[in-house]
Amino acid sequence: MLKMQQITEEIVRHVIQPRQQESHKGTFGRVMTIGGNTHFGGAIIMSTSAAVYSGAGLVTCATAPQNFVSLHARLPEAMVVDYQDYAAVAALMPQMDCIVIGPGLGTDATALAVLKFVFSRVQPQQNLIIDGSAITLIATHQLALPHAKLIFTPHQMEWQRLSGIKLPQQTPAQNQRVQQQLGADVIVKAHRTEIYLANSSTVWQNPVGSAAMATGGMGDCLTGILAGFLAQFTQNRGQSILAAIYSHSKISDNLAKQQYVTLPTQIITALPHFMAQMAG
Amino acid sequence: MLKMQQITEEIVRHVIQPRQQESHKGTFGRVMTIGGNTHFGGAIIMSTSAAVYSGAGLVTCATAPQNFVSLHARLPEAMVVDYQDYAAVAALMPQMDCIVIGPGLGTDATALAVLKFVFSRVQPQQNLIIDGSAITLIATHQLALPHAKLIFTPHQMEWQRLSGIKLPQQTPAQNQRVQQQLGADVIVKAHRTEIYLANSSTVWQNPVGSAAMATGGMGDCLTGILAGFLAQFTQNRGQSILAAIYSHSKISDNLAKQQYVTLPTQIITALPHFMAQMAG
Amino acid sequence: MLKMQQITEEIVRHVIQPRQQESHKGTFGRVMTIGGNTHFGGAIIMSTSAAVYSGAGLVTCATAPQNFVSLHARLPEAMVVDYQDYAAVAALMPQMDCIVIGPGLGTDATALAVLKFVFSRVQPQQNLIIDGSAITLIATHQLALPHAKLIFTPHQMEWQRLSGIKLPQQTPAQNQRVQQQLGADVIVKAHRTEIYLANSSTVWQNPVGSAAMATGGMGDCLTGILAGFLAQFTQNRGQSILAAIYSHSKISDNLAKQQYVTLPTQIITALPHFMAQMAG
Amino acid sequence: MLKMQQITEEIVRHVIQPRQQESHKGTFGRVMTIGGNTHFGGAIIMSTSAAVYSGAGLVTCATAPQNFVSLHARLPEAMVVDYQDYAAVAALMPQMDCIVIGPGLGTDATALAVLKFVFSRVQPQQNLIIDGSAITLIATHQLALPHAKLIFTPHQMEWQRLSGIKLPQQTPAQNQRVQQQLGADVIVKAHRTEIYLANSSTVWQNPVGSAAMATGGMGDCLTGILAGFLAQFTQNRGQSILAAIYSHSKISDNLAKQQYVTLPTQIITALPHFMAQMAG
Repeated sequence: MLKMQQITEEIVRHVIQPRQQESHKGTFGRVMTIGGNTHFGGAIIMSTSAAVYSGAGLVTCATAPQNFVSLHARLPEAMVVDYQDYAAVAALMPQMDCIVIGPGLGTDATALAVLKFVFSRVQPQQNLIIDGSAITLIATHQLALPHAKLIFTPHQMEWQRLSGIKLPQQTPAQNQRVQQQLGADVIVKAHRTEIYLANSSTVWQNPVGSAAMATGGMGDCLTGILAGFLAQFTQNRGQSILAAIYSHSKISDNLAKQQYVTLPTQIITALPHFMAQMAG
Repeated sequence: MLKMQQITEEIVRHVIQPRQQESHKGTFGRVMTIGGNTHFGGAIIMSTSAAVYSGAGLVTCATAPQNFVSLHARLPEAMVVDYQDYAAVAALMPQMDCIVIGPGLGTDATALAVLKFVFSRVQPQQNLIIDGSAITLIATHQLALPHAKLIFTPHQMEWQRLSGIKLPQQTPAQNQRVQQQLGADVIVKAHRTEIYLANSSTVWQNPVGSAAMATGGMGDCLTGILAGFLAQFTQNRGQSILAAIYSHSKISDNLAKQQYVTLPTQIITALPHFMAQMAG
Repeated sequence: MLKMQQITEEIVRHVIQPRQQESHKGTFGRVMTIGGNTHFGGAIIMSTSAAVYSGAGLVTCATAPQNFVSLHARLPEAMVVDYQDYAAVAALMPQMDCIVIGPGLGTDATALAVLKFVFSRVQPQQNLIIDGSAITLIATHQLALPHAKLIFTPHQMEWQRLSGIKLPQQTPAQNQRVQQQLGADVIVKAHRTEIYLANSSTVWQNPVGSAAMATGGMGDCLTGILAGFLAQFTQNRGQSILAAIYSHSKISDNLAKQQYVTLPTQIITALPHFMAQMAG
Repeated sequence: MLKMQQITEEIVRHVIQPRQQESHKGTFGRVMTIGGNTHFGGAIIMSTSAAVYSGAGLVTCATAPQNFVSLHARLPEAMVVDYQDYAAVAALMPQMDCIVIGPGLGTDATALAVLKFVFSRVQPQQNLIIDGSAITLIATHQLALPHAKLIFTPHQMEWQRLSGIKLPQQTPAQNQRVQQQLGADVIVKAHRTEIYLANSSTVWQNPVGSAAMATGGMGDCLTGILAGFLAQFTQNRGQSILAAIYSHSKISDNLAKQQYVTLPTQIITALPHFMAQMAG
């Protein structure tokens, strides 16, 4: 029996706890972000930056080598690896708590090969956030899904491609039916984003956010926050996902009091301050 | 019968409305900026940044590949494409609501070829902002103008080349005569910029701005604001153009209370805040 | 007889004295940072930036040429040289007051060769800060240590590799025994970092810092502060080392009042202001 | 008869006048900065940035192509040209009001060739600021000086090389004797910088500045401010030079109230605000 519920700030405050002092960077998880072809390098820069600024312990970006310099010029905190250097990617993947694939990946043969390689190596206990063109590739090529903790972050058109449910028929009940077949967490991004969690009959709705977020890269930014939260806040995956989504939008709402549009890079910069407020 | 009128803040407030909440990034338009050769890459970076910060939904920059990294290091929100990869440019162009051509394009054979290609593909319903060296190329090579919603942004010397009217003879009446032949919107940039709108006998004058704006790149910045406004504010093209011009100068005036010179990149950064004030 | 003592703010205030006015950039020392392969370029960018922002007079970064552009995009104040251009490195090394080797160096054949070259050229009066993968290389390849003022900055696992003391046995007494054999200053980074100074029986503990620092690049940042302090504050090496460690953590504590995580690049930016407070 | 006098804030306030409103970017001058080899690219980035932020109308940087991306990532307002593309440099030079040569130029054969080329093309009415390695090259190769408005900006060691006066003998009288032979403006940078103006018997001393400025790149920054001031403030060259030097140091003094070291890039950022205060 389907139940609708709204994410609350209490959930966020519950998830973002003060950090345990006896810890080191490994305590807060390892994240790999995979994407960014020669046209869409900005997308993976934003995803990676969001993972770092949300507090992931160690972040490696697997991308086209053409993006290494722009990434490091903005974010020296991250490491880089050529996403087509499969030996290097394979060597790094087992350490990861959370992997993001999709931002700026594109849909060409290189993208497909990278996606297939990641699917062949991801392990059941790892979080795998699948975004943007990676979703389109799965739908187009009818790829079998790997055994891992999958999180899909489609917007409504991507969800149509993946689920086969046409946009006007994307009701909570229909969405949940396909989500449960996928056995994954699914975040359907829209004016009011809906979240379908694996192993839960509740459909969650994001009550915050506004049209000030309707700008390119906003979804890329969300993938990094999701990764950062899942890497650090491991007590309750579902709640961490909800908290990431709410935080992303709530930061925009805070900025939007004084801005007509809120850019992904501004939301990223504001993460450490917002999270301190939630933890405080 | 020619009428002179000054742009007012009321026009800006009328154009920049609070965003409709049921929306997505597509709602706020797609922009392509075309320019930036190996010497003048900064110009297209500024134009593209202004489009993003003024709130265009999705922005793609077509430029020399040498500029990809510097653009992404400043602005991961934008996508990039090689401006000489005509297949890729042709595939993207039909989606665009607004195209800017000219900032940092140069006047060599490559520039001419790119310009001609864009002229051959632009569609009647698309806004095409023609700036800087693109204007010079049209004048020099007597290029036929394409069927599109053309906006020219010459400074007075470029206007002389395009219109054939020598600088001392650039009276409103003379300017309007040629502008009406062109069937385009024309913005003649000067100490007091004048705007000649298609389908209107009124000549608009920009009452704001100061010599603090007299620095390289200021015109490139304007093209991006124009593109962002035309992509989002589609109710009244003429008013959107006037609002973009006024906003560009008014932000400088605000900054100039505390700065001797106001740089284009500073005006870009201030856009979201200024627009919130106008919409509020 | 081993004595434990905590670093105090008084030590920092004692080290960071108002600058002597009759001086020039040479007065404040020359630093070379060596590291940053094609994957870990961010690490050497952060080390180099911390040296500049902590006030070193002149800073040169020896790194893979792929990192030159990202470094200069962030930090034009530093000079660059290819770390495999041994002639150039050898020509520069004799001028240096302090050399950092290790951040982002990696552990491959190139890294080993660079490390060996530096060991062959460093001079007894020079400070040589050995960090990260350089420590691992020494342990793995059992490299003989050069005659210089050595400072090791291992985290606990790296210290296990270098000292042979398993992590659970890393007691102050055991650590000090090996440190004295090394004849070096050793900084064992942990939740509460411990410092073993050459020529001193006191074991120092860092009382500040928090889990907000548990993020990638934090140790790279520390190497640069150490280098900057050793290059400038030459009266008492031991106290300068202690002051650098305390400052690094205390700045994070200040930021952590409002941030959930504190990034290395934010600590770097805050250095000049913090140091003014200590000197004031 | 030699007279010593201190630069005053009144001179700065006299030089930096409110801008004439009937103007355009050409009104405020064209600057070319030449330097930045593959090791010292940061130097020319800082010089160029200082020219832009001090209000020069149009600024072109002639440098090694490896520096184009880092320059544009920081400063899209400037144009770039390969400093070894002599045809391009020659085509641009005649438009310039002020040329800077030296920051990060180096002293190798390429540097010498570039310097000689610029000397062969500079025109008598142009300001030519000669800095750093360009001064060393002149001394080493005993280059004949071109007919132009020369401004030398040596530190004391460079002045020794150029003038032949050993550092301990660098008295005002000795310095002035050689400066008058050179027929140039000479700025001898030291703890208290001294300025020897062409056509004046007064030796000026800079009363502001502190050891917080003793960091790499500070001189590069000064060349850009000098260029910006000479390009804009053309009424009295000598006073413009004095005002540039004072402004550079005074901005540092303002920052040094809260900073232990003041970086060149911070001084650059503060220029527009400081200049507004002086003009106000």
